[in-house]
Amino acid sequence: MRVWAGPMDRIWTAALLVIGDEILSGRTQDRNVAQLATWLNVQGIRLAEVRVVADDMAAIGAAVTALSTANDYLFTTGGIGPTHDDITVDAVAAALGVPVVIDPQARQMLADHYAERGAELTDARLRMARVPEGAGLIPNPRSGAPGIRHGNIFILAGVPHIAAQMLDGLTGTLEGGRPVLSRTIGCWTAESRVADLLAATEKAHPGSQIGSYPFFREGTTGANFVVRATDEAVLDACVADLAARLEAEGLEWVDGGI
Amino acid sequence: MRVWAGPMDRIWTAALLVIGDEILSGRTQDRNVAQLATWLNVQGIRLAEVRVVADDMAAIGAAVTALSTANDYLFTTGGIGPTHDDITVDAVAAALGVPVVIDPQARQMLADHYAERGAELTDARLRMARVPEGAGLIPNPRSGAPGIRHGNIFILAGVPHIAAQMLDGLTGTLEGGRPVLSRTIGCWTAESRVADLLAATEKAHPGSQIGSYPFFREGTTGANFVVRATDEAVLDACVADLAARLEAEGLEWVDGGI
Repeated sequence: MRVWAGPMDRIWTAALLVIGDEILSGRTQDRNVAQLATWLNVQGIRLAEVRVVADDMAAIGAAVTALSTANDYLFTTGGIGPTHDDITVDAVAAALGVPVVIDPQARQMLADHYAERGAELTDARLRMARVPEGAGLIPNPRSGAPGIRHGNIFILAGVPHIAAQMLDGLTGTLEGGRPVLSRTIGCWTAESRVADLLAATEKAHPGSQIGSYPFFREGTTGANFVVRATDEAVLDACVADLAARLEAEGLEWVDGGI
Repeated sequence: MRVWAGPMDRIWTAALLVIGDEILSGRTQDRNVAQLATWLNVQGIRLAEVRVVADDMAAIGAAVTALSTANDYLFTTGGIGPTHDDITVDAVAAALGVPVVIDPQARQMLADHYAERGAELTDARLRMARVPEGAGLIPNPRSGAPGIRHGNIFILAGVPHIAAQMLDGLTGTLEGGRPVLSRTIGCWTAESRVADLLAATEKAHPGSQIGSYPFFREGTTGANFVVRATDEAVLDACVADLAARLEAEGLEWVDGGI
């Protein structure tokens, strides 16, 4: 969603579309959601929604249209290899209403790569140079395998360490707002005991958000309270107030979480 | 999506809606997608789509409406605790156009639970007995903490081991079709070398799907080919054909994957 918190404090949002039967079948544990979320926050962009869809043209296309319209940026992961189940480029192009073309720079990179290895640039390998018409490449500073950018859509690899390299190539290039700052306070209490306290503290500090994450450890119940704000003064005041209120209830708290 | 593969072979689908700022901020690595996907497959139900949204009434509501309409079943995880950021029940009720009510059975379970511990059933704790009107409870055979069912919507906890207990309570109770069977063949080859071979093999065996998952290990390139089908004879024929075609290319394959 696009949210304006005020003229000086626009919130920039991104969505992630994870493409792949391997995630939906349970075969592969996704790693790209947490990785992208962490990277986006440093860029001052908030991950607002994630969708995971199968290797299916219609499902990918519908999600691309919905998510790229509703957010400042859309990232996709998966489905850009050389095999028949890699249909991300085709699906994005269809959603955009543009043809798929061979990118000359990507073609040259592939030709060099396979020539160095004494291998042919077959049609299957050339598939990896295909882009939606009008796209540019996302430089990969480490391995050379580029991602694809078309407008506000960023097409990344599904293999997490390759997606990370492509994100490296984008670091500092996207317009964003203020990063969300956070601090965590841990407490050995049932969260139900402090539910009203948490709600009252959040309400007393506009611009702050408190998330409560319970856990069960060493045979007893605890919770981590994550305070988030874009303004450091708001964050500090909310954390201090929360700590004081917990103490007033006779509860000890642990800075940094448990 | 609802897909009819034929009158005797209806494909049952489910969606998962993961609710929680902690996933979108990158703080917590989701575990429920893979867990639910694996459980669903045993029930003969296919996980067709996943969405992750923030603790936001409008975002949850829009996703609940879209996903519960497009699929046979919708599962949600997260946001059913006692704190102010736990708004899943409210958001699902709003999406369904029904009020939130206290479930008498859930109320009794909470009263017993806190009485045993000499603690009060406060308003915050009573929040956990709230359900969308018309809902029933999903029994939790292990810890007692129930989930909530309303029509084709199943509301589960976000903590993975509690979500797993609620799924245990549902095992064998949902109508499904034939489970998807799968077998994996591994091969030390660049997937680009066998891309045409894979596409041709899949095409020769209607009802089969071949996914290709490349990896880089021990300094060299390999791929696992996952063959999926609901019909065991189709699966066996496709796997045998794939193995024969790899051998004809001079490639060794490893049953079960690498």
